[in-house]
Amino acid sequence: MRTARVYIALLHYPMYNKRMDTITTSITNLDLHDIARAARTYDVEGFFVVHPSVSQRKLMGEILAYWQDGYGGCYNPDRQEAFKQLRVAENLNGVIDSIQHETGQRVYTVATDARIYPNTISYKRLKQELFDKEQVFLLLFGTGWGMVQELVEGCDYILEPIDGAGEYNHLSVRSAVSIILDRLLGQFWYDR
Amino acid sequence: MRTARVYIALLHYPMYNKRMDTITTSITNLDLHDIARAARTYDVEGFFVVHPSVSQRKLMGEILAYWQDGYGGCYNPDRQEAFKQLRVAENLNGVIDSIQHETGQRVYTVATDARIYPNTISYKRLKQELFDKEQVFLLLFGTGWGMVQELVEGCDYILEPIDGAGEYNHLSVRSAVSIILDRLLGQFWYDR
Repeated sequence: MRTARVYIALLHYPMYNKRMDTITTSITNLDLHDIARAARTYDVEGFFVVHPSVSQRKLMGEILAYWQDGYGGCYNPDRQEAFKQLRVAENLNGVIDSIQHETGQRVYTVATDARIYPNTISYKRLKQELFDKEQVFLLLFGTGWGMVQELVEGCDYILEPIDGAGEYNHLSVRSAVSIILDRLLGQFWYDR
Repeated sequence: MRTARVYIALLHYPMYNKRMDTITTSITNLDLHDIARAARTYDVEGFFVVHPSVSQRKLMGEILAYWQDGYGGCYNPDRQEAFKQLRVAENLNGVIDSIQHETGQRVYTVATDARIYPNTISYKRLKQELFDKEQVFLLLFGTGWGMVQELVEGCDYILEPIDGAGEYNHLSVRSAVSIILDRLLGQFWYDR
């Protein structure tokens, strides 16, 4: 049984674009759906979607209202259920403050990235922490071409990249979240 | 090292809708992108997108042309690379014939479904086959509310559902493909 409390956040700033400029990415509707469904399936405590722009947060509020209170929730109660843990935030500090307020505990941040950083933590070791210690973890996922280096390096842990079967490693954030939640929170243990 | 050759197919007919009527679903652009990227990351031999309608297959042809020969391929070579193994087919028999012609071997079909069927094969056992035998496997993924029962039961194997962390189990097909490819084709072994 999992002993830790696990939250996730999808960030849209500060991200890289393909030229490694720092940019703000846009909200993608299907990110909200796919990641909310995966978060609910793996019993994540909360899914924060983080965006600095007022209009983008307003757009999210409208999408949420449709699936929580509008026709969508009536048509598809499973989707309504998935959207229950989705919360909108302006920036990462706001997310950490919310979780600290909710749990009364220090929040350990975990960066995820397709790039290789020194001192990454393995899936196996982080999973041991999640099933052994009563701590609070926040997994961070980027968009665009990934989180800027300072953001990644400022986290308590950096999770190793997903290793597929070769050199190519360009998963969508929707796929990456799904695989990482399965590896860390799935009811199985693995060796590598 | 994997010894088997593994193909995947995304089917749009015959599927259930939420009332368990048999329907044909529409092509979803992001299914093609996310699943092609995951398939390439896990070194799948080929990704077939199967649709009975001429106009839907034509639409796919246009999407593919943009990313293979048009501006998209130039803008994003990683996406061009991912789309290389994507092939369009009219029906499942056509897919099986193509693979048999290509490999000269019998094709073992594997249904994936969120519903529980008797006689399912576990991830662990199927992975052992994939890393031990030189056979050809075709993993089938459904859309809508899933593949109709006759289609599932007609397969050589039925893979057990993805177990999350509780009762809720409503992943998108994009998430399900990603998790299943990681469990079956990832370079690690697990116990459950």
